[in-house]
Amino acid sequence: MSLESCPKHKNDSAKPSLMPVFEGSRKVYKPGVIFPELRVPVREISLDSGQRSLQLYDVTGAYTDPAANLDLRAGLPPLRRSWAGGCKPTQMTQALAGVISPEMEFVALREGLTPDFVRKEVAEGRAIIPANINHPECEPMAIGRNFLVKINSNIGNSALSSSVEEELEKMLWSIRWGGDTVMDLSTGKNIHATRERIIRNCPVPVGTVPIYQALEKVGGRVEDLSWPVYRDTLIEQCEQGVDYFTVHAGLLKALVPAARKRKTGIVSRGGSILAKWTQIHNQENFLYTNFEKICELLKEYDVAFSLGDGLRPGSTFDANDEAQFGELKVLGELTKTAWKHGVQIMIEGPGHVPLNKIKENMDRQLELCHNAPFYTLGPLVIDVGAGRDHITSAIGAAMIGWLGTAMLCYVTPKEHLSLPNKDDVKEGIIVHKMAALAADLAKGHPMAIAWNNAMSEARYAFRWEDQYALSLDPQTARRYREESFPKDGTSNRCCTMCGPDFCAMKITQEIK
Amino acid sequence: MSLESCPKHKNDSAKPSLMPVFEGSRKVYKPGVIFPELRVPVREISLDSGQRSLQLYDVTGAYTDPAANLDLRAGLPPLRRSWAGGCKPTQMTQALAGVISPEMEFVALREGLTPDFVRKEVAEGRAIIPANINHPECEPMAIGRNFLVKINSNIGNSALSSSVEEELEKMLWSIRWGGDTVMDLSTGKNIHATRERIIRNCPVPVGTVPIYQALEKVGGRVEDLSWPVYRDTLIEQCEQGVDYFTVHAGLLKALVPAARKRKTGIVSRGGSILAKWTQIHNQENFLYTNFEKICELLKEYDVAFSLGDGLRPGSTFDANDEAQFGELKVLGELTKTAWKHGVQIMIEGPGHVPLNKIKENMDRQLELCHNAPFYTLGPLVIDVGAGRDHITSAIGAAMIGWLGTAMLCYVTPKEHLSLPNKDDVKEGIIVHKMAALAADLAKGHPMAIAWNNAMSEARYAFRWEDQYALSLDPQTARRYREESFPKDGTSNRCCTMCGPDFCAMKITQEIK
Repeated sequence: MSLESCPKHKNDSAKPSLMPVFEGSRKVYKPGVIFPELRVPVREISLDSGQRSLQLYDVTGAYTDPAANLDLRAGLPPLRRSWAGGCKPTQMTQALAGVISPEMEFVALREGLTPDFVRKEVAEGRAIIPANINHPECEPMAIGRNFLVKINSNIGNSALSSSVEEELEKMLWSIRWGGDTVMDLSTGKNIHATRERIIRNCPVPVGTVPIYQALEKVGGRVEDLSWPVYRDTLIEQCEQGVDYFTVHAGLLKALVPAARKRKTGIVSRGGSILAKWTQIHNQENFLYTNFEKICELLKEYDVAFSLGDGLRPGSTFDANDEAQFGELKVLGELTKTAWKHGVQIMIEGPGHVPLNKIKENMDRQLELCHNAPFYTLGPLVIDVGAGRDHITSAIGAAMIGWLGTAMLCYVTPKEHLSLPNKDDVKEGIIVHKMAALAADLAKGHPMAIAWNNAMSEARYAFRWEDQYALSLDPQTARRYREESFPKDGTSNRCCTMCGPDFCAMKITQEIK
Repeated sequence: MSLESCPKHKNDSAKPSLMPVFEGSRKVYKPGVIFPELRVPVREISLDSGQRSLQLYDVTGAYTDPAANLDLRAGLPPLRRSWAGGCKPTQMTQALAGVISPEMEFVALREGLTPDFVRKEVAEGRAIIPANINHPECEPMAIGRNFLVKINSNIGNSALSSSVEEELEKMLWSIRWGGDTVMDLSTGKNIHATRERIIRNCPVPVGTVPIYQALEKVGGRVEDLSWPVYRDTLIEQCEQGVDYFTVHAGLLKALVPAARKRKTGIVSRGGSILAKWTQIHNQENFLYTNFEKICELLKEYDVAFSLGDGLRPGSTFDANDEAQFGELKVLGELTKTAWKHGVQIMIEGPGHVPLNKIKENMDRQLELCHNAPFYTLGPLVIDVGAGRDHITSAIGAAMIGWLGTAMLCYVTPKEHLSLPNKDDVKEGIIVHKMAALAADLAKGHPMAIAWNNAMSEARYAFRWEDQYALSLDPQTARRYREESFPKDGTSNRCCTMCGPDFCAMKITQEIK
């Protein structure tokens, strides 16, 4: 494995962790109150030479714990298996019954909320805790607009690229930079084995698009897809421990003609497969007609729905059109069906949307889908950013996150061009973490405010080490300054942007 | 010089240009109608194997013209010197008198507007055409909210870094990637010589902050700054051909105490200098008390004001506070004074502002500053992005651009850490071009729509060469796809993201 090893870091433990904690940080745990066996991970940054500290949300699992006994072949310890009550699906059913689960308290401690607030949000469908009973390695987290905005990173091979070990590395790399969930979108070889390696080692929820594997099972022939093949695939993935499924059940046969008016047709892989199937067979989408059966299955394992937007716009021209909003209406109906079964659900959203059309997406989703969490891909605010579409995506993501989207799917610099490598995954994650944090800050989240203020105070006091520790990518921040900073003893109270005589903050402090 | 040379490109000329035209593009000129001697540059992209083409705004001057006779030692040809009426300041005075200048028609042709519309916008102060009579090398452009959103890139040395030739290279590099104006913020050695090299070779407006050079003239001692030293500096720079000056005339002595309540005090270099001066001398800011004299000077050369926001917030905590908006009110008063003299003016804006406070910035600026163009630095929507603050800036910039900001000052990845190098300048420019284009598209600008639609059509038709040509960074887009694409003759109708069997657009087309 190419995981970085960190033989010596600052948390005074003799045993190195597999993944170095960010500089200036150490991993600490908060105990549960209702469930004392809970150990909720936190990244604690020491500031101002140890005079104060800041606690941040941490998704890196045992990998940043020097005391953990890690073995990538055996997988992570099955954390949730020992929790009392942790195996009774679903979180929503429990929440509706007034029960606070260990998962709910875990989430509450991570987010600085009360367990009962978490329970209420889950009960009312405004938030989900994707946690398959067969993924006990997962540290519970919530996706909902009254929680921190989350981000997902997509990994997975295609027929043209990548291996099992590479995908495992991408997953680890993704949580290292702060990915809150991971979707394995493999469509190439060894789909089952790749997913197994990922799930057993993954401390965050894992999502998939089961139609991809179902299609592989029928040799790539869309016409041969059928409910039995799909159902067997769902069972296989439920058993394995997938936490949420993208299901394109809202793409009705009658909606396909509307997509023909578009500049870019259907750009969702799952959407195009289902659209083709409905046209070949001249039958309704079998995910729609079998939706209640899918609910019954997912309920057994507490797998959450991520209802796919098969008709999301793939160009700003196509944004907010009849096809897109027609499907969204169906997704709203299916949301009620899922809730009837106590199955947790979130709704996927676009895509490519110009800035002036973003708000309508959020408004309609909340209205049509009864406040179920929204999970968007970007949106990308222009079409011509090839090579830097992670940024055109982050722009739209920040805005829609502020308006109420619960989770942002990352886009990498390679979007529209090729599969991302590790560097691309890192870039994609970090810029979408920025977008999520911008949204949290605009929503007035206390953790976001505290984090940003700590940085501003460190900046004004020229505490450079603290600035590195507080930035989203400490190593890069340090490198940028240190590469250019003269080693001749020039005052630390400036940087090369302005030099020692033109530093505004220094001059301001002289006034005081 | 390290300019790339391009011995062979696609515009069929025997003579190479100093700067290669982007692939798939060629430089063409539109002639004037009122002034037939005008040659307005356009980048024309050939699409669909020559069956159609798209024309884009072009800021690269003669450097991308294979027929141009270029010599960086002699400077660019003094284009505007031969224009009838081109030397009668100011554009605003002429516009108010009902006169359409060659500069106005030039702008109209660049932007796809009528010359009289341009005249009216300039007359009413909603747009400026920064064009010092002593910068005849400059190709006129407009900054105003009814025009394409522009971006500025800052270059310039500091005491700790950079040389004259490096700064010239940064300027050329900056226009190569689409910078609409360039500010030379040098504070180190050879300020005059650096600026001379830049202006003589610069086809876009050049801005400066004259207080920096004035401070160098008094040995860096703020207390020794005085109106005579500043006035002489202004004259020197007016004579040299600077097109707009940042003047921190709105930072009144009485506003300084309000900045003491902040997390990051004063973060504008010019602002901190003036604040310190007012406190040392216990006198009103001499830029404020001499503002009418400055107007009289600028009027002679048609140099535009860029009224500095010396009290812009340097942290999201400080955004929209008493100090910031107190200064903005003064800037509004000074705007009327400048207009009284026929001097063109724009207003500088923040800084660090969370998403939820951006709109108030735009609304107040329009109201307090009587629709004068707004020119913002970002705003950065979080504080913890060190190492990638070009992106936290682009997020805020896209939003404020959509709301009506006329020009966006770029921020580079090195912001808060060190001076940018060439790669950083390129990144800063491209992400802010993206932000500007996102704003143009959201405002419904026909050029932005046409550009994005051309890309979407090329994408759906798998015209990869056209996609590269239409992206903001063709070389990078090409490299990303070609690096990973198998050379084994696999269909061109996919990329490695999805592989040949899972391409949604391909499947969609099979349905049709």
